[in-house]
Amino acid sequence: MRIGVLGSGSWGTAIGVLLSKKGYEVNLWDRNSEVIESINQTRENIRYLPGVLLPAGLNGVNTIDECVKEAEIIVIAVPSQAVRKVCEQLRGLIRSEQILVSLAKGIEVGTSKRMSQVIEEYFPDNRIAVLSGPSHAEEVSRDIPTAVVVTSKERETAECIQDIFITPKFRVYTNPDVVGVEIGGAVKNIIAIAAGISDGLGYGDNTKAALMTRGIAEIARLGEALGAEYLTFAGLAGIGDLIVTCTSIHSRNRRAGMLLGQGKKLEEALAEIRMVVEGVNTTRSTYELAKKLGVDMPITSELYRILFEGKDPRYAVSDLMLRSKTHEIEEIAVKMW
Amino acid sequence: MRIGVLGSGSWGTAIGVLLSKKGYEVNLWDRNSEVIESINQTRENIRYLPGVLLPAGLNGVNTIDECVKEAEIIVIAVPSQAVRKVCEQLRGLIRSEQILVSLAKGIEVGTSKRMSQVIEEYFPDNRIAVLSGPSHAEEVSRDIPTAVVVTSKERETAECIQDIFITPKFRVYTNPDVVGVEIGGAVKNIIAIAAGISDGLGYGDNTKAALMTRGIAEIARLGEALGAEYLTFAGLAGIGDLIVTCTSIHSRNRRAGMLLGQGKKLEEALAEIRMVVEGVNTTRSTYELAKKLGVDMPITSELYRILFEGKDPRYAVSDLMLRSKTHEIEEIAVKMW
Repeated sequence: MRIGVLGSGSWGTAIGVLLSKKGYEVNLWDRNSEVIESINQTRENIRYLPGVLLPAGLNGVNTIDECVKEAEIIVIAVPSQAVRKVCEQLRGLIRSEQILVSLAKGIEVGTSKRMSQVIEEYFPDNRIAVLSGPSHAEEVSRDIPTAVVVTSKERETAECIQDIFITPKFRVYTNPDVVGVEIGGAVKNIIAIAAGISDGLGYGDNTKAALMTRGIAEIARLGEALGAEYLTFAGLAGIGDLIVTCTSIHSRNRRAGMLLGQGKKLEEALAEIRMVVEGVNTTRSTYELAKKLGVDMPITSELYRILFEGKDPRYAVSDLMLRSKTHEIEEIAVKMW
Repeated sequence: MRIGVLGSGSWGTAIGVLLSKKGYEVNLWDRNSEVIESINQTRENIRYLPGVLLPAGLNGVNTIDECVKEAEIIVIAVPSQAVRKVCEQLRGLIRSEQILVSLAKGIEVGTSKRMSQVIEEYFPDNRIAVLSGPSHAEEVSRDIPTAVVVTSKERETAECIQDIFITPKFRVYTNPDVVGVEIGGAVKNIIAIAAGISDGLGYGDNTKAALMTRGIAEIARLGEALGAEYLTFAGLAGIGDLIVTCTSIHSRNRRAGMLLGQGKKLEEALAEIRMVVEGVNTTRSTYELAKKLGVDMPITSELYRILFEGKDPRYAVSDLMLRSKTHEIEEIAVKMW
């Protein structure tokens, strides 16, 4: 079986490594042809996944056409705001029997669409799956035990992708809740920036745990308003991914937040990280989506003010801490007292 | 107002500091009179909370009688397996208008009782509250922003304790779900030992996030079987406390697990930590309770085998990873596919 991976960032490369180690023939494409050239020459993705030897079955290719032409599975691993552009490029190249797998985590700015919705716009006849969960590329490429979920509208599609991606160290579970899995994966990056700000301001583990607890609550509120299942947010694509993104040293979103908390401007923080920080755009699109739906998302709103309206992070965190509510969970208080 | 705190470990001392800074007169007692003597002489709890100046309003007292006699609020901050013994000592000293506040996190070995149930056995006419949530003592004593929950059968009791304990940096929310709050606080220590084992074995952030995600699911399963509300486990006393205990350098339970993962025997690990590691006894009591109720708790069961039956942690973690299920959450799969 042949698999095409679009996007040679750390996650696209790590998934390419995993699939080629399983024996699939993997073509890897990126709009940045220098990265591809370097991969083929050095057998390493020096910029995005340094130190990992790329197996012989993983080949960098120069054109998107070559990448997808003979592939049965096409993995879309570009930054979320580039998914539409890649779909444009794929127009006319895709056959309806090819399965498209999204690894992108974000919500499109302007349309507020989830990634699978963007892909479906272009390829309504194709089967589409989404892979998500707590899975830092650096660890997956080093065979560190990892568990993720795959979701799709059709059970068969999800189970097919499960079979293809699963290994003894990379456990893939199925979940039919496409909306929940995508919202969890996208919005946790917002909370991770906020958690990073808390760390950067010198607050503690207690503070961050409280922030993450409220974070998953607002992710779930948005998800339920969009038709997701509450339980998905208690799973790998919900708190699982939130935990890893808010606490790991590998998380760029958290690192961006730390720099902001230490007093850097957004542009300075992004320049220092040199990779896409998904949470920044997702804060904008989620803020707009929540407003449209009337969903209360206090952390997202405060982060929006910090990122785009120049609010001082110190005031934002204390504003979050000093909210006036007294019951932790209103619906339990109403029910039990 | 006068408050008596029983137990001068790190958490009892930190709460004593917080309350005395608010202007209450706080008496602190411990069965270890040397710690009390040292506190009164040095104004520091060198062994359990080094580096924190104890305010003048916080006084070490030598007898339990002196500690509780004129107190309106009595805070029980001893290790969970010592709560019954302290209740025995308090017999005859307690008046029915005194409010008892439990800070102990555990389930009693032998009886499988929650801490408030043990206290209620001795003082059925008193109002009882429980304080829980992500709150490392080291951080609370340094005024790091922290959010916790207080629960009680009576709303008035919870709100009274909320008023007494709350500060701008220590936010106290009420939750009526006594069972959920206590189960969350107790059982997260089991998951934290398991998370520490994963760290000690050299696994990654992905692995630990997967473990914590399954951990909160099994905590909630046990809680619901005992009558708790599912949502409590999505809150501060559930995932909030789980996150802090599994990721913080301050967590003794996690540290004990790390030592086990690195190949130490249980006795060696406990000797190195020199403080009570609540999760060890709680693994025993929870294992028994889950068996009695027929609740599936795979992490608790594996940890029980490691701690008490000599199972090698390496096999336990891979046994957990390789469980055969394929759907992430069976009930969503059944509903949506």
